[in-house]
Amino acid sequence: MEALQPRRSGANAALRAAAPAWILLSAAPGLRAEMEEIDGTEKEAEESHRQDSVSLLTFILLLTLTILTIWLFKHRRVRFLHETGLAMIYGLLVGVILRYGIPATSYHNKTPPSCSLKEGPASTLLLNVSGKFFEYTLKGEINSREIHNVEQNDMLRKVTFDPELFFNILLPPIIFHAGYSLKKRNFFRNLGSIITYAFLGTAISCFVIGNMMYGVVTLMKAVGQLTDKFYYTDCLFFGAIISATDPVTVLAIFNDLHADGDLYALLFGESVMNDAVAIVLSSSIVAYQPSSANTHIFDAAAFFKSVGVFLGIFSGSFVMGATTGVVTALVTKFTKLHCFPLLETALFFLMSWSTFLLAEACGFTGVVAVLFCGITQAHYTYNNLSAESTKRTKQLFEVLHFLAENFIFSYMGLTLFTFQNHIFSPIFIIGAFVAIFIGRALNIYPLSFFLNLGRRVKIRGNFQHMMMFAGLRGAMAFALAIRDTATYARQMMFTTTLLIVFFTVWVFGGGTTPMLSWLHIRVGVDPDQDLQPSADSFQVLQGVSSQGDGQSKTKQESAWLFRFWYNFDHNYLKPILTHSGPPLTSTLPGYCGPLASCLTTPQAYENHDELRDPDSDLIHSDADLTFMFGDTSITANGASGRADAAGELGWSANGKRSGSTSEEALERELDSREQELLSRGTRLVFPVEYHI
Amino acid sequence: MEALQPRRSGANAALRAAAPAWILLSAAPGLRAEMEEIDGTEKEAEESHRQDSVSLLTFILLLTLTILTIWLFKHRRVRFLHETGLAMIYGLLVGVILRYGIPATSYHNKTPPSCSLKEGPASTLLLNVSGKFFEYTLKGEINSREIHNVEQNDMLRKVTFDPELFFNILLPPIIFHAGYSLKKRNFFRNLGSIITYAFLGTAISCFVIGNMMYGVVTLMKAVGQLTDKFYYTDCLFFGAIISATDPVTVLAIFNDLHADGDLYALLFGESVMNDAVAIVLSSSIVAYQPSSANTHIFDAAAFFKSVGVFLGIFSGSFVMGATTGVVTALVTKFTKLHCFPLLETALFFLMSWSTFLLAEACGFTGVVAVLFCGITQAHYTYNNLSAESTKRTKQLFEVLHFLAENFIFSYMGLTLFTFQNHIFSPIFIIGAFVAIFIGRALNIYPLSFFLNLGRRVKIRGNFQHMMMFAGLRGAMAFALAIRDTATYARQMMFTTTLLIVFFTVWVFGGGTTPMLSWLHIRVGVDPDQDLQPSADSFQVLQGVSSQGDGQSKTKQESAWLFRFWYNFDHNYLKPILTHSGPPLTSTLPGYCGPLASCLTTPQAYENHDELRDPDSDLIHSDADLTFMFGDTSITANGASGRADAAGELGWSANGKRSGSTSEEALERELDSREQELLSRGTRLVFPVEYHI
Repeated sequence: MEALQPRRSGANAALRAAAPAWILLSAAPGLRAEMEEIDGTEKEAEESHRQDSVSLLTFILLLTLTILTIWLFKHRRVRFLHETGLAMIYGLLVGVILRYGIPATSYHNKTPPSCSLKEGPASTLLLNVSGKFFEYTLKGEINSREIHNVEQNDMLRKVTFDPELFFNILLPPIIFHAGYSLKKRNFFRNLGSIITYAFLGTAISCFVIGNMMYGVVTLMKAVGQLTDKFYYTDCLFFGAIISATDPVTVLAIFNDLHADGDLYALLFGESVMNDAVAIVLSSSIVAYQPSSANTHIFDAAAFFKSVGVFLGIFSGSFVMGATTGVVTALVTKFTKLHCFPLLETALFFLMSWSTFLLAEACGFTGVVAVLFCGITQAHYTYNNLSAESTKRTKQLFEVLHFLAENFIFSYMGLTLFTFQNHIFSPIFIIGAFVAIFIGRALNIYPLSFFLNLGRRVKIRGNFQHMMMFAGLRGAMAFALAIRDTATYARQMMFTTTLLIVFFTVWVFGGGTTPMLSWLHIRVGVDPDQDLQPSADSFQVLQGVSSQGDGQSKTKQESAWLFRFWYNFDHNYLKPILTHSGPPLTSTLPGYCGPLASCLTTPQAYENHDELRDPDSDLIHSDADLTFMFGDTSITANGASGRADAAGELGWSANGKRSGSTSEEALERELDSREQELLSRGTRLVFPVEYHI
Repeated sequence: MEALQPRRSGANAALRAAAPAWILLSAAPGLRAEMEEIDGTEKEAEESHRQDSVSLLTFILLLTLTILTIWLFKHRRVRFLHETGLAMIYGLLVGVILRYGIPATSYHNKTPPSCSLKEGPASTLLLNVSGKFFEYTLKGEINSREIHNVEQNDMLRKVTFDPELFFNILLPPIIFHAGYSLKKRNFFRNLGSIITYAFLGTAISCFVIGNMMYGVVTLMKAVGQLTDKFYYTDCLFFGAIISATDPVTVLAIFNDLHADGDLYALLFGESVMNDAVAIVLSSSIVAYQPSSANTHIFDAAAFFKSVGVFLGIFSGSFVMGATTGVVTALVTKFTKLHCFPLLETALFFLMSWSTFLLAEACGFTGVVAVLFCGITQAHYTYNNLSAESTKRTKQLFEVLHFLAENFIFSYMGLTLFTFQNHIFSPIFIIGAFVAIFIGRALNIYPLSFFLNLGRRVKIRGNFQHMMMFAGLRGAMAFALAIRDTATYARQMMFTTTLLIVFFTVWVFGGGTTPMLSWLHIRVGVDPDQDLQPSADSFQVLQGVSSQGDGQSKTKQESAWLFRFWYNFDHNYLKPILTHSGPPLTSTLPGYCGPLASCLTTPQAYENHDELRDPDSDLIHSDADLTFMFGDTSITANGASGRADAAGELGWSANGKRSGSTSEEALERELDSREQELLSRGTRLVFPVEYHI
């Protein structure tokens, strides 16, 4: 947040600071006229600096107001409006005030001076004013019809930030936090499905929406509603940016109500991953340049080049993020930095941020790299940090994420009124709403069908409907849309994206709780099993006893790729990068002995006897349990439940209701959850043998 | 930290993002030439963005390296070099590499395009390139001899940040953290002395240095060493910026060794306060504009105007900071926000930052406002936060402060080689070293003499010498010096300031430990008495018994002003703003009854019976104790110690050595401290009656 201040005021403030010095120095007689002129400039710069502060203050007060209202809502258990929706509403109100409440006359009623050059725009321009040189930096191209806007309303201009702000400052903490919170067993259990939805699903959605919108655009051309160019690639670009889902509202309610863990993991995992996919996809579409410059028809070479760009950027960012994560893990493992939590936290923060810069410096996508850095760090580095630092880093990124997210949403609200170049096209907007609906449906339902062929525990109908329903659009779609609003097509896309975000966040976000009960989705299940202190190295009783060993084996064989990865991770990566896991000396072949003992820390030997690796059960026999647990979750509410299923039995044994559909029941459920979790965690589980 | 990225890359990145869109759109036949030109611009912008990332990465790797080395130093108990000194050394090394290691030829070997205008510089400039308009923002004036530097070495230019960065991003967290850490009883005990040193002392130092430097400048003119203008006001300005002390190195060692608490409070308090005084003083000197424009002689009207500016800005910033602090206290008191630590922390962060913006928007000094906001929040708001949030906010600002401080110091190191306009003037530099020495001496010794006339417990000689020795210059002097380097005089000041910072941080910072033992200053005293859980509402045994009531009364009467403030604070402010203190219903007169019960929360009634206000003993009978404790501290090492003094006896009773001069002893002392603190805290004290 602190970043906003100087970038808008820097230039002016520098002038402001410099000006008094000139006044003292240029005080030779006869220079009065010049002095007065500089004095005027100084005053103007000071006024501009003041306005900068006021505009930032507006946002801070907006956020403060949002926080206070959120508290009130949480306090009163209001769930129909999430904090992000609230931030948008406040943003809208302030936008209206700024737009219509402040007189449009600015303090200087002149168009800014302009000069002409024959060369192309350089990043730096020198201005010669009677022998004095001033340095100017390029801000961007400005539309010829916007030129008179420059003078219109200073305050409106002040509250408009450089779009790169969203990519370089606000998204990284949000995405990193998402990656860093992914250390959930449910996520790894459903990894295959998540990746399918994120990659295949987003691609489907992108192309479905793109093609439908091309139809809409053609229709608009036919009825004469389109006044400027709108190419097929533009439609695909729109498909890419609008395919990034952001069910933050839905997930917050899932979290509150402890809704089913697998569904949570599917939704959260998909939304995190498809953000990354959408970014890279949109860059690839921009990179699609047919060789014949005057056409926008299909060009196979350019298409494959785009696919290459996609794969290159994605894998490059992935490797970059994973590498920094691994380096941080090694650094934190082999230094005793954990004695100084402050140093540790600072180092962790710097390393995470350097991922972003490293990726940008290499031409990859910083945001995607940061995501995978977060996942790697949650998986490895996290284990090396001191207890103090794990808390600190989590909290630090939690605060940053919270502020960034609410800032983006309130800015969205504001933008609806303060953005100067909206193009509201009813046909395009209606078309887009239909297209995203169909695009989401063609993503979720067919993929779920195919996934269910391979999954032992099916993704049932009500889960699919919920995933369909939770296709909200949020921060990433907005950031991608605002990044470039230079052309007519992009401006129309931006307006439409904004409306889609508003609609989905308010309507779908607000309807989550009724939808959950209408779809009979079980609530009151602990979504984060890691919270249960003893659950890590134990297993749910029924998961083993009722299924038997035969089926367990079958499952393990079918998931051999994941088994291979987990074994590799457990036997080699974890011991190398963290203090946990079996000592390398016992997993590496004999001839690697010296290397192994060099890489194994004394803690590893100790840990090996006492502690279990948090993911160890997952590796060896959890695949089966996973699906058991998933199964029970679906069978809640007595719809088609099997009484011997794990969760069901657990609840019955505790003498509690096993699910309820009315909202009041949800409330009661929530109230009585806290004290039950722990007892349940220990009552339902028993230790399982550790077999390598 | 995250702020650095976009402000330098924003413009270019925006262009980069916009460019591909043009390429798709401007693809009409015959436009190939234009496309290639834009393509070139795009490549240049991308290259520039890449360089931005690399330059930031440089700083991050610098900080990472610093952190790892600090860890090594802490691990090995190396004390001759503090982390800030280390950061400077690494910065220096990287500066040398950037300056001499990278070939000066940039990728575009042309001077940036320039155009001429007759009007003065506006903040926005439009550039017309064959019908397309580009918007440029003013970066600042550029020296005519710097113009060819623009093309010289891109990397050198990239690592040079806008000076306002220091004021708007890096200083606020440092200063806020300082204010927020001031909640130490020793600080309030020595408030009078601290304010005297900070205000009167800084003013003395400023004028002494300013006048001496004017002498030096006159000498330089006489021997022909001065090639450009250097006015008396410039000299005074130099006096103001160089009077801001920053004994961060010394205090870190004090903290490590648990050196005397009163000395710590005097040094820390003085340095925090004199930063604020120096900022406002320098603005006031800049505001000193004699009415006769062509002279720089003394002008009474302008002088009083400057004094008015000083008082106005200082009191305005003070009121602004205190007000936001009070508002935050009220908000946190009357909402039950403490159930949601994340919201609470975010709110706290936003409110603190809004102080800065509010002050800037009103034309006051944000940094000064933030300092007083921090103090107010530490005193009131802190008590309303949940235990979780108090930790979170402390840690959040600790990390920010740590990163900001080390960034500034490594940037200082870098600047010595990368700054393009150094003016090394041996006479000026030698003169400045002598002047700051004399200025510091004329601040500390005479003021200590006068303070000792009023103080019961004198500031002894060895304390005075230590304060003299601890007159290091740091971040604030640097930030004030780099803020404006447009003129010859300012450039010379900047170079000199940089050298003074290097010298004092390395030599005085490194010499702290030997100096402490050479001056026989006691170590192993707990500087933060608030850490002792039970010490707050108790008193040191001897402080009461050996002195008797008569003297205690005398003391209280002499400090009536502070007594009045403490009573007012305890009886009215604390109960209004926090949950602690006596209920308002018991302290306010009867006719305020309804208001009082409205402002008093149920907790206050409960707390009243159980808890004591942390500062309560201070108010009623601590004045005496204070000086007792201060006294013993001074009499350590058997030099002139009284055996019945509090600290002395405490240590003797515990069968431990009461002080040692050799460095090995210091080490041992430190090692054995941790387990003793708690037992000492309870063994030495007994409950005291609570009398209103």
